[in-house]
Amino acid sequence: MRPAPALRPSIVSRVLGPRRVPSFHRHVSRQANRSVAELLQWRPADKADNVVVNGFVRSVRPMKSHRFVALGDGSSLAPLQALVAPDDASGLAVGAAVRLTGSWVASPGASQSHELHVSRVEVLGPSDAKTFPIQKKYQTPEYLRTLPHLRPRTPVNALLLRLRSEAIASLTHFFAGRAFTQTHPPIITSSDCEGAGEVFSLTPASDLAPSPGPDAAPAPAPAADQDASFFRDRKFLTVSTQLHLEALAQAVGNVWTLSPVFRAERSDTSRHLSEFYMLEAEMAFVDDLAPVMDLLEDMLRSLTTTLFASPTVQDLLSRPRHTGSHLVPADDVRRRWEGLMRQDWPRITYSDAVALLQQNADRFKHKPTWGAGLQAEHEKYLAEHVGGGEAPVFITNYPQDIKAFYMRESHTAAPEALASGPTVDCFDLLVPEFLEIAGGSMREHQLAPLLDAMKRQGFVTPPLEGGAGPDTPSAGDLDWYVDLRRWGCPPHGGFGLGFDRLLSYLAGVQTVRDMVSFPRWYGRCDC
Amino acid sequence: MRPAPALRPSIVSRVLGPRRVPSFHRHVSRQANRSVAELLQWRPADKADNVVVNGFVRSVRPMKSHRFVALGDGSSLAPLQALVAPDDASGLAVGAAVRLTGSWVASPGASQSHELHVSRVEVLGPSDAKTFPIQKKYQTPEYLRTLPHLRPRTPVNALLLRLRSEAIASLTHFFAGRAFTQTHPPIITSSDCEGAGEVFSLTPASDLAPSPGPDAAPAPAPAADQDASFFRDRKFLTVSTQLHLEALAQAVGNVWTLSPVFRAERSDTSRHLSEFYMLEAEMAFVDDLAPVMDLLEDMLRSLTTTLFASPTVQDLLSRPRHTGSHLVPADDVRRRWEGLMRQDWPRITYSDAVALLQQNADRFKHKPTWGAGLQAEHEKYLAEHVGGGEAPVFITNYPQDIKAFYMRESHTAAPEALASGPTVDCFDLLVPEFLEIAGGSMREHQLAPLLDAMKRQGFVTPPLEGGAGPDTPSAGDLDWYVDLRRWGCPPHGGFGLGFDRLLSYLAGVQTVRDMVSFPRWYGRCDC
Repeated sequence: MRPAPALRPSIVSRVLGPRRVPSFHRHVSRQANRSVAELLQWRPADKADNVVVNGFVRSVRPMKSHRFVALGDGSSLAPLQALVAPDDASGLAVGAAVRLTGSWVASPGASQSHELHVSRVEVLGPSDAKTFPIQKKYQTPEYLRTLPHLRPRTPVNALLLRLRSEAIASLTHFFAGRAFTQTHPPIITSSDCEGAGEVFSLTPASDLAPSPGPDAAPAPAPAADQDASFFRDRKFLTVSTQLHLEALAQAVGNVWTLSPVFRAERSDTSRHLSEFYMLEAEMAFVDDLAPVMDLLEDMLRSLTTTLFASPTVQDLLSRPRHTGSHLVPADDVRRRWEGLMRQDWPRITYSDAVALLQQNADRFKHKPTWGAGLQAEHEKYLAEHVGGGEAPVFITNYPQDIKAFYMRESHTAAPEALASGPTVDCFDLLVPEFLEIAGGSMREHQLAPLLDAMKRQGFVTPPLEGGAGPDTPSAGDLDWYVDLRRWGCPPHGGFGLGFDRLLSYLAGVQTVRDMVSFPRWYGRCDC
Repeated sequence: MRPAPALRPSIVSRVLGPRRVPSFHRHVSRQANRSVAELLQWRPADKADNVVVNGFVRSVRPMKSHRFVALGDGSSLAPLQALVAPDDASGLAVGAAVRLTGSWVASPGASQSHELHVSRVEVLGPSDAKTFPIQKKYQTPEYLRTLPHLRPRTPVNALLLRLRSEAIASLTHFFAGRAFTQTHPPIITSSDCEGAGEVFSLTPASDLAPSPGPDAAPAPAPAADQDASFFRDRKFLTVSTQLHLEALAQAVGNVWTLSPVFRAERSDTSRHLSEFYMLEAEMAFVDDLAPVMDLLEDMLRSLTTTLFASPTVQDLLSRPRHTGSHLVPADDVRRRWEGLMRQDWPRITYSDAVALLQQNADRFKHKPTWGAGLQAEHEKYLAEHVGGGEAPVFITNYPQDIKAFYMRESHTAAPEALASGPTVDCFDLLVPEFLEIAGGSMREHQLAPLLDAMKRQGFVTPPLEGGAGPDTPSAGDLDWYVDLRRWGCPPHGGFGLGFDRLLSYLAGVQTVRDMVSFPRWYGRCDC
């Protein structure tokens, strides 16, 4: 116990420095420092003095009388050009965090309209340039992936962070404008919605071993049943929030979420992560699939239209050839944006799609067959020939046997399609090159057909011999989901879209591992 | 294999009905149906025909010549009043999902200006009113908590969902306006940031047993080391995204996130959940705590100021006494909002706070002692006497020994405080009644002091005898975090705020379990 200091008068007035601006909406005036992006846009007629900018040294080029310093702060692909006297430049190592003060003056060179003539250098965070792992030279994505904590500091990865942020803001605005309620469905759940079994199970670490120190050996496995003790039963990380969204849609109508979901798949592809964000929306009181597809289409068109002119997307589309050479070429990326901004995306039934594929069956390795899933080569053909290689394409009404139990059986399909077998009110959205980007369906909102489908797919144990009637079978962990159909379940439907995949597509990033700052996949969870 | 249907001409043009409105920004015209909230605000001079509204039957009151139906759709606390002829009312059971069409006419009664004279009733989702668990009569929060899938359908819980949604949208707008980058830090992590050991560990369910069916018995525990096999080492659910946010702040400057975090605490209080949302922000290139507190203060003031006049908050503040009688009284909730909208929240150091408490030591059960944490009774006194029971209060510069390893040591504290022992640049934000609502700090951005602090707290194993120097000790799973200090780490700081707790405070909800749709806590994870 230590003695407390003596009380001085007027404690409360001893705030940590007076507030400079009293009201929140005048905050801009407090931001004395400009970002590099703001400075690069600022072209005063006269020289401006006392300009302060924070950032990281990207490179230092020694000239006869001064040093050319390229400064970046993540706000733009292009660095700011600063001139520093040799005597001031000693701490300006590559990677260092610095604050530069100087005059913003018209540049004689062609590359930038202005440059900063630096009068004061403050090295706020020094860097050992010799050991700095992120050098200016080209580094492979594979190498950078081993350094997720430093990788965002490369200009292209900072750009990807900005794209994600602007996309979230744009989508939030879009849904707010339509009075959709943004929700936080649970991450820890009882059920494996897709039934694939590729889920993560949870155990409190304290049931395993004492809190592991930094270098502790792997703790022993939990004793039997310990992992089930915290929540009584074993619980999982969600693979989709859809089932819970349906419950919320019965409360407040149209809902959406942007939520992390998890898959314990042992797959090692450019499209799969163990942890990723999913954008899911659910509409209540919709009678058929058309308004659900309208929503998805409108959402993606709104997103791309509002972001297209932003500095971030213009950075993405006008990047020099050498910047991010592992990315899809900028012209191809531009075509992707233009495709999503188009009006009236084609919609075609699965049955018609299969018929179209069968007319061209000799092109394919896998024979197009009604009742089987579409192969990548089939989807590619459809994206090119139905969407003209530009517009996204909706494929609707897939066979019931290859789709999830909760999808509503179609009643509007053409009779000749029904002859092949029952279909469900669902869709996949295909985009050129990248193929499936989203999927959705009407959900079976009536009790009896839902229970039938769950029985067919093994989700429901049949009632005991002589049971009390059709409502008695148990759906176990999904009983609550069945319950939703007992009291006032309106027709409803929705979609799910892999948000990181969408961003990869829009950014031209070849693998979703490079779109996510700290990617997790089978065998890899760095930092 | 089934035969495919014959191909018909012009497949592509057979879209599922023509799009009615070609452009996304004209979506409003497609929303033919009005919400109950919109209708209640609509007071046409003449009767309006062909009005369509979707919703759920809250109650049915038989009158002589007709039925009075109260219809809710989650958009407002107040229901819409509809008059239905007895012959049309057979399916209008409590809970049913219905579509009503009729005329919107001035009401002779006092309760609502208009009412719907229904000409057409469509029961879209029938309800068995006798078994419907959510009856109109008062039901305890404890009872409703056993039905999380149905609970959102009560008017108060729908209101809470709207509040959450509007808060998210407002915060997203706030941060976008300040050019903060919204990020998605990882949920699965290697480290236990707070060092408390109360984390969830992950195991792929497929390592445990075959995919559990609905009624499967608990699967056997994983074999030794199996749970570590998916990611090579054992991994955890994050307890705070702060460490990863720091890495991102070094890339793009100011960042924020609204992310789920997890605690495997075996506590059973009104303030704790195993899964909750945390709002965290991190500012780069800030020299001291003041701008971090400014940000938090501005953010909360912006949030409350922009939402205060919204129909949702007005519903919350003007709700009838009987509605949600388990909630904090509406007048008290109003005071909370007014407190957060005030200017210039007091800021006081921990040392000054202890001195103030010691002057009034006889009031407290626990003796106020410099070096110990503040007890709830102390925080309550400070909220009442420093904040006047109205304004929130920042308590700053706590003793180093009781705070986390990553906090920067204070260099600006008064000398008499330093005499008591070292403090760190940190703060807690207290609000009246509810006490701590957020906390933040400057982070130690220099390598040597960070390693010293980590050694003191046992996060770093000392270098081997004769090791290569001060940089060689291992921080194990936190090596990457130490790494951030090696190359260009600017001064930075940030805060974390329990989002669900904030919403509870703003809504007057007594326990965070009633603020979250599907709450998870020790022993409970329903649906």
